[in-house]
Amino acid sequence: MKALVIVAHGSRRGASNDEVRELSRKVSEVLGSDYSMVNTGFLELAEPLIPDAIEECIEKGATSVAVLPYFLSAGRHVVEDVPAEVAKAQSKFPEVEIQIKPHIGGLPSMISLITDSLS
Amino acid sequence: MKALVIVAHGSRRGASNDEVRELSRKVSEVLGSDYSMVNTGFLELAEPLIPDAIEECIEKGATSVAVLPYFLSAGRHVVEDVPAEVAKAQSKFPEVEIQIKPHIGGLPSMISLITDSLS
Repeated sequence: MKALVIVAHGSRRGASNDEVRELSRKVSEVLGSDYSMVNTGFLELAEPLIPDAIEECIEKGATSVAVLPYFLSAGRHVVEDVPAEVAKAQSKFPEVEIQIKPHIGGLPSMISLITDSLS
Repeated sequence: MKALVIVAHGSRRGASNDEVRELSRKVSEVLGSDYSMVNTGFLELAEPLIPDAIEECIEKGATSVAVLPYFLSAGRHVVEDVPAEVAKAQSKFPEVEIQIKPHIGGLPSMISLITDSLS
């Protein structure tokens, strides 16, 4: 049973956090049965925090969790902070496969997303 | 003569700013002759700042400038700060058409970018 956790920084501005939650909901609709659940996790300033978001999925039966960093650049958050938070969940649930995907800003398809948006 | 300015927040970490500049370069390659130039502008912490990035394009002959906010959420930066910086350039060059595009986090195609990256 596969789960996806979209991980964002978190903001003091509630609407920004809701934007990410709404994105997760839409992603869930498109993924359909490939991923039986899609959750949102935040590095700080909003809930659930990353380890809790992963744990929620595992409690609902996920045996494999993909973590997608919804960040534009490979800064400290992507390189150090997100992996450290994911490691907390991994050590609590060593039997679950938890995999961090590339951050979205580094995806080659970001180029076509931008160029398509201009046409 | 159309120009595109990709606008990012700017970071104290030079590599993050270079990531955005590299993105602009790749976008430029794909856009080809549709946009005769693609520049990068920063809200703060890196150069060129947004008004200077727009002005550079105009000095090279741009008569129309599209500004693309490379931001994930419609926070204060997207709603207030970027428009305020663009307005500085617009008031200096009233004859040039300067248009702010939707921020990338709000593009419907962000959903498929994410779902495609998982398959």
